[in-house]
Amino acid sequence: MFEKRLEELQILLPETPKPLAAYIPALQIGKFVYTSGQLPMKNGVLAAAGKVGKEVSTEEAQNAAHIAVINCLSAIKSVLGSLDKIEQIVKITVFVNSAEGYTDQPVVANGASELLLQIFGEAGKHARSAVGVSELPRNAAVEVELIASVK
Amino acid sequence: MFEKRLEELQILLPETPKPLAAYIPALQIGKFVYTSGQLPMKNGVLAAAGKVGKEVSTEEAQNAAHIAVINCLSAIKSVLGSLDKIEQIVKITVFVNSAEGYTDQPVVANGASELLLQIFGEAGKHARSAVGVSELPRNAAVEVELIASVK
Amino acid sequence: MFEKRLEELQILLPETPKPLAAYIPALQIGKFVYTSGQLPMKNGVLAAAGKVGKEVSTEEAQNAAHIAVINCLSAIKSVLGSLDKIEQIVKITVFVNSAEGYTDQPVVANGASELLLQIFGEAGKHARSAVGVSELPRNAAVEVELIASVK
Repeated sequence: MFEKRLEELQILLPETPKPLAAYIPALQIGKFVYTSGQLPMKNGVLAAAGKVGKEVSTEEAQNAAHIAVINCLSAIKSVLGSLDKIEQIVKITVFVNSAEGYTDQPVVANGASELLLQIFGEAGKHARSAVGVSELPRNAAVEVELIASVK
Repeated sequence: MFEKRLEELQILLPETPKPLAAYIPALQIGKFVYTSGQLPMKNGVLAAAGKVGKEVSTEEAQNAAHIAVINCLSAIKSVLGSLDKIEQIVKITVFVNSAEGYTDQPVVANGASELLLQIFGEAGKHARSAVGVSELPRNAAVEVELIASVK
Repeated sequence: MFEKRLEELQILLPETPKPLAAYIPALQIGKFVYTSGQLPMKNGVLAAAGKVGKEVSTEEAQNAAHIAVINCLSAIKSVLGSLDKIEQIVKITVFVNSAEGYTDQPVVANGASELLLQIFGEAGKHARSAVGVSELPRNAAVEVELIASVK
């Protein structure tokens, strides 16, 4: 059902990133799947680098959050085999690389939240924290981590 | 029991914030409840805005953490119906909007932790992370998220 | 098995920090153990203080992450009695006190991740988020929190 919805939305999950030595893109433990913090990488390139509110606009950052959460889903699929096994999106945390005085982190995070709602419907309604941080890996504009539960 | 304790402490839980489109104030999944990151909103107004250690004193920030964790409890109550269903406060994360060189995040976080202990006693003893961030939504002085387990 | 591995690696877990009033070093709830955010304290002294990329080198910060994750394990041992009861390291979050423009948080976090792999092998492969924050308690270079599952 959710896989079909992805198709309808014409969203293509990227190749799952290769597991690195010591940590992995996602892990299932009992009823839960935890993803690692995902950057807005698309085709091996950062979709948005720099501070939101300065080098990166709110709209660009929303799009980056959208891409990062797709990478979360790709990481989950690499563990579960299919997104159809997801019962509920439980929690996301959206870290926004924020310029001084930038306080629209929730608007940026909507780029992730709204996509989850589009794909998963009721099962996509989640708890969320959005915070502004001073630096992110590779100077990414956002980083998103996600917890889901499994049917 | 915990609801009664709230009364004794004369703490009034605010009206639960309306669920927003894509994310919700709190979510129960199995034995756990996750809240969204809560700001120190009181009667629709931020109780403390600005950087702790500069525009906001440590004492004001402690009070803001106190208010934010009350909003966490309100979010949980909106899901469980009653705080008496809480088995244990599991974990809180306290994000402190910190001025340069401000390192008393744990003192600020005590404003949340001590209230949980007052209300829940042994069941209120929790794991905690307190970190300093550069920006928060609406320029709030603190943001608090909470995980609890359900009886 | 994991306790034996610690011995082979000649890693001595420090005395568990005394539980503080309102929050505790770690908490077990059902199948999970959550630690509080741990600083790189060694013999009561911070192993690395200051901003990574400025006062603290990447190598020093890696070592600090190594020490902080040892403190996470010590906190877990205080709850479980033995690390041999750990089933899986589930998730770590590494907060790096970052100088302006410092973006090697994942390299710093490897100081924690690689140790977990050394000690726990397959059971040490975890999900991870690494973010740069502007301030940390006591001006610590890193703060690490950990979630594990119990056999």
